[in-house]
Amino acid sequence: MTEMTDVSCPLPSEQENADQAKGNPTLDSSTFIPPVPLAYPSIIIEFCDRCRWLHRATWVSTELFLTFPPPALKAISIIPLNSEETGGRFRVWLNLEGSPPQLMWDRKIEGGFPELKGLKQRIRDHVQPGKSLGHSDKKSE
Amino acid sequence: MTEMTDVSCPLPSEQENADQAKGNPTLDSSTFIPPVPLAYPSIIIEFCDRCRWLHRATWVSTELFLTFPPPALKAISIIPLNSEETGGRFRVWLNLEGSPPQLMWDRKIEGGFPELKGLKQRIRDHVQPGKSLGHSDKKSE
Amino acid sequence: MTEMTDVSCPLPSEQENADQAKGNPTLDSSTFIPPVPLAYPSIIIEFCDRCRWLHRATWVSTELFLTFPPPALKAISIIPLNSEETGGRFRVWLNLEGSPPQLMWDRKIEGGFPELKGLKQRIRDHVQPGKSLGHSDKKSE
Amino acid sequence: MTEMTDVSCPLPSEQENADQAKGNPTLDSSTFIPPVPLAYPSIIIEFCDRCRWLHRATWVSTELFLTFPPPALKAISIIPLNSEETGGRFRVWLNLEGSPPQLMWDRKIEGGFPELKGLKQRIRDHVQPGKSLGHSDKKSE
Repeated sequence: MTEMTDVSCPLPSEQENADQAKGNPTLDSSTFIPPVPLAYPSIIIEFCDRCRWLHRATWVSTELFLTFPPPALKAISIIPLNSEETGGRFRVWLNLEGSPPQLMWDRKIEGGFPELKGLKQRIRDHVQPGKSLGHSDKKSE
Repeated sequence: MTEMTDVSCPLPSEQENADQAKGNPTLDSSTFIPPVPLAYPSIIIEFCDRCRWLHRATWVSTELFLTFPPPALKAISIIPLNSEETGGRFRVWLNLEGSPPQLMWDRKIEGGFPELKGLKQRIRDHVQPGKSLGHSDKKSE
Repeated sequence: MTEMTDVSCPLPSEQENADQAKGNPTLDSSTFIPPVPLAYPSIIIEFCDRCRWLHRATWVSTELFLTFPPPALKAISIIPLNSEETGGRFRVWLNLEGSPPQLMWDRKIEGGFPELKGLKQRIRDHVQPGKSLGHSDKKSE
Repeated sequence: MTEMTDVSCPLPSEQENADQAKGNPTLDSSTFIPPVPLAYPSIIIEFCDRCRWLHRATWVSTELFLTFPPPALKAISIIPLNSEETGGRFRVWLNLEGSPPQLMWDRKIEGGFPELKGLKQRIRDHVQPGKSLGHSDKKSE
């Protein structure tokens, strides 16, 4: 695996120029279309920042994107919280079009952090019901 | 630094119980309030997934949260793209209340990836104008 | 927290120059002292790369350094393995001076991945016996 | 990509049992062979921890393993430093069998952090001279 390969990304010639150190100041950023505020399907990870769970949340995000690359998941948002009421929170939500966010994991309900296999199975059942997650998947079905 | 310290997170007693392996199935998740779809200020990182820039995007996210913990930044969303039109894209957007997303970085315009110091300065100028980013900050002002 | 702060890192003036884009080619790298091959205390994380556990290993590494900054831990080495005999391996070893590496975690023995709290307690007992890992620490003692 | 797939990791039946929650306490860890202290080829990343470069170092490690999976690189060690003399240090070393570590990057000499493409090219020239790093590779040759 390389950072950028011959086959995977047919770049337009403008970009080749942009790769030069000078950049391409003639591109007009006012023509850029901002991303939509909320893509579907997407994941939101809320966590207590006072409990120092940023890196755990980020790791979960990385694993979910590797298992469900776009368009299976189109976005993951990470939301650190630091108020007293949200102390100890670690929640994973799934956003599907046309319904409010669905809770995939709550640390207090489940009594701990998501074991990845289980979290992936729950998300898979919503976004790619037919997808196998490998032989580790079979045991829990 | 520890994962959870005595002083930083005064957990309610319910949570102590939830820490046990059994969890707390009597918590009623239907009472949970889903996160708002778009918090302010927040960051969106769009990138070409075919160029394998997930880990770069995730690293930038980690660094921004460490420099701008909530409420300076309330959320960061990561959006992988894999169509031909978005080949080579790496854009960082800032969402402030009451205005459309503002472009903080575009790889094609700038001719490369954000050097963190510069990206942090641009974001700082919007979300915490008086904040010093350390002595490395002074040289470029 | 910033990437580089006024107080934490009193840089010599040579470095200030080196921060410029041109670099400092007059520094003589032949005078640089290579790092010692094996510092103590240190951690080694071995894992099966075919099981795609790189990001899990890297996350564990990040958490251990945040809880045990140097000199409590002086180095962490990550070793991906991809032979048939090492299929499914996830082991964490502790290197202390004067003794062979001590096993802190083995996925097959323990029946799963390290829950961070438990792994940190085991390592703490060797490298910083008096250190509190926070209130989450007390329950399991 | 899944965390564990049908084809990539033919686990022995002992391991299937170990996957159960109870673990496999009858495995005799005294028979485990500790990893060799220094595998070749391998990378060492030294950095100033007071400059908060842990996440940058970790990200570089992740990228190098994705481009040079084992056996091209067999280990990466991360060494945080926090003394005054090592203020501002960010060095990447390559260990090849039979020679002392070779410097691949020094922040003070180069005047900044490694741009990944360049660092990968330098390492590639030593560990996999014939390997293409993709079309982004060609421009700088």
